[in-house]
Amino acid sequence: MKSKDSRMFRTEWEFLRWLGGLAKLNDRCVRLGIGDDAALVHIGESRELVLTTDLSIEGVHFTGRIHSARSVGHRALARALSDIAAMGATPRFALVSLAITKHTTRRWLEEFYAGMESLARRFGVSLVGGDTAVVPRSVSVDAIAVGEIARGKAMRRSGAGPGDLIYVSGRLGMSALGLGMLKSRRPPGSSIAAGRQLSSEAIQAHLFPEPRCGLGRYLAERRLASAMMDISDGLSSDLARLCEASAVGARIEAALIPAPEIHSRGKSLALALNGGEDYELLFTVSPSKASRLPGRFQGLPIHRLGEIRRNRKLILIDENGKENVLRPSGFDHFRKE
Amino acid sequence: MKSKDSRMFRTEWEFLRWLGGLAKLNDRCVRLGIGDDAALVHIGESRELVLTTDLSIEGVHFTGRIHSARSVGHRALARALSDIAAMGATPRFALVSLAITKHTTRRWLEEFYAGMESLARRFGVSLVGGDTAVVPRSVSVDAIAVGEIARGKAMRRSGAGPGDLIYVSGRLGMSALGLGMLKSRRPPGSSIAAGRQLSSEAIQAHLFPEPRCGLGRYLAERRLASAMMDISDGLSSDLARLCEASAVGARIEAALIPAPEIHSRGKSLALALNGGEDYELLFTVSPSKASRLPGRFQGLPIHRLGEIRRNRKLILIDENGKENVLRPSGFDHFRKE
Repeated sequence: MKSKDSRMFRTEWEFLRWLGGLAKLNDRCVRLGIGDDAALVHIGESRELVLTTDLSIEGVHFTGRIHSARSVGHRALARALSDIAAMGATPRFALVSLAITKHTTRRWLEEFYAGMESLARRFGVSLVGGDTAVVPRSVSVDAIAVGEIARGKAMRRSGAGPGDLIYVSGRLGMSALGLGMLKSRRPPGSSIAAGRQLSSEAIQAHLFPEPRCGLGRYLAERRLASAMMDISDGLSSDLARLCEASAVGARIEAALIPAPEIHSRGKSLALALNGGEDYELLFTVSPSKASRLPGRFQGLPIHRLGEIRRNRKLILIDENGKENVLRPSGFDHFRKE
Repeated sequence: MKSKDSRMFRTEWEFLRWLGGLAKLNDRCVRLGIGDDAALVHIGESRELVLTTDLSIEGVHFTGRIHSARSVGHRALARALSDIAAMGATPRFALVSLAITKHTTRRWLEEFYAGMESLARRFGVSLVGGDTAVVPRSVSVDAIAVGEIARGKAMRRSGAGPGDLIYVSGRLGMSALGLGMLKSRRPPGSSIAAGRQLSSEAIQAHLFPEPRCGLGRYLAERRLASAMMDISDGLSSDLARLCEASAVGARIEAALIPAPEIHSRGKSLALALNGGEDYELLFTVSPSKASRLPGRFQGLPIHRLGEIRRNRKLILIDENGKENVLRPSGFDHFRKE
């Protein structure tokens, strides 16, 4: 991936040729990749297409000080693959639109595509196209993913019914904890072994989040989940969205939320509820199917948080058994600070 | 489309609900549109998918002074639909990623989507998803289009062979002429009727370019063209790309290039060769099929420019019959000024 030649590409054409060589067409469903006007792909018969696009913008979603080019590439694609996972679909193709500045180096581009390509390869995704521009400031990325799923099998946010149990994969708040550590450059508890382990897990969760495509597909194929979405802005906001789409409410217990194991339980819970960028799956399962749900899926823990209620309020039961209204407090681009 | 309420959306959720209502799902192939994690669509059996994405960035592709929000929305989608046209495919779905600033008004958003939606509706395209972010400066748009085409029918840049005739639709350089007029605010020849007509055509070509999907599909379905692409950066650059992809050269005649009818023929030719943003189709046809090519397609003129040669040079014959090397001089994001 590294080139001896560290000069920047002189023309867009030169860049596209390099990119075309990098994203080799070893997927026989890709009829035409980078270098023509558009990509040409084939999807199996009686399949449905899942289409998603996610922006990653310097100064909003990443900064040069904290995120390496490899992390920026990984995270941009991971966000899109996580949306595909949330539908229970199989990711197949990706496109990336990239606006760079005149200060962007060839090395940065190489590392960016290395991060994206390595994630794509692991998930069987072919990078088939994109667009590029040079802008005065702020690198921005738009990652587009195309997935496929058997007709009628896609999971939606809108299927949760009263009595359904609410589950989440993995541990929430780890990405926000990792971001905090990267910002302060002072990992909490870094002097003890457990602290070091937690620090490195949290930093990894932030810089290289893992889309849960395997679990999403498992739940959709077996029709285990009634509703599903990924947690991108934070549990409090995303649970509210799932409930709104399903026209229901929810009651979850703070004690059941898998949060980072740090000294302050209050801070830990706040990270898990509002931290965002977890890219874990939030889903609901009817009680009749709950026994078929594994406690772990390929090593990934699955935790029950509470249940769906007919009453459209969102309730959080704190660790003293007291009921509180849970307000959506995750990330929102439109909210005034 | 206009709202009495001119306040900005307070949350992203409020914005998405507005957007979801705007992009109604009257396309029965759209199973799920804006508001879930991803869009879900269906494409007919034994069809191939065409995927494309195009960036439009404030200060690079448009400016607030020259381009209304409606034009920005139209142009962003038109660029993507033009790529679909270049493959000879039928556009079906679109997604749009939009980064706005805190100064963007609700009115701007409404007009932006009105411009995009009106073009989408005319071309039978369903707007099925996207992403949104708020950034410190410079609005940017990434328009993604998904098209479909019968297996094996897609047109590529790489099919041109020696002896094939080279054609172009419409009149080149009009968009660049219109942009010049909009920048100077002094339309040349505005005092005479012909000048007024030309001015308004050029400004329309720049602000509201028309993707040539009908012609593209016509040429692909009848297998009339051997290679095809759209002209986005300028004829000189795009012809070079088509020739490079086909491993051939070309010889075109200046006298045959349909250029804007302004006083200076030199300036007119420069606009047609290097102006860019024409979104006309450039294609090649074998001599045996040339007689089947109409002189106009649904009112749109088609002009022969010259022919493909085995020798990989690009030659422009000037109006005195002299041969010159044609250098790619259209727009290139990577080129140093």
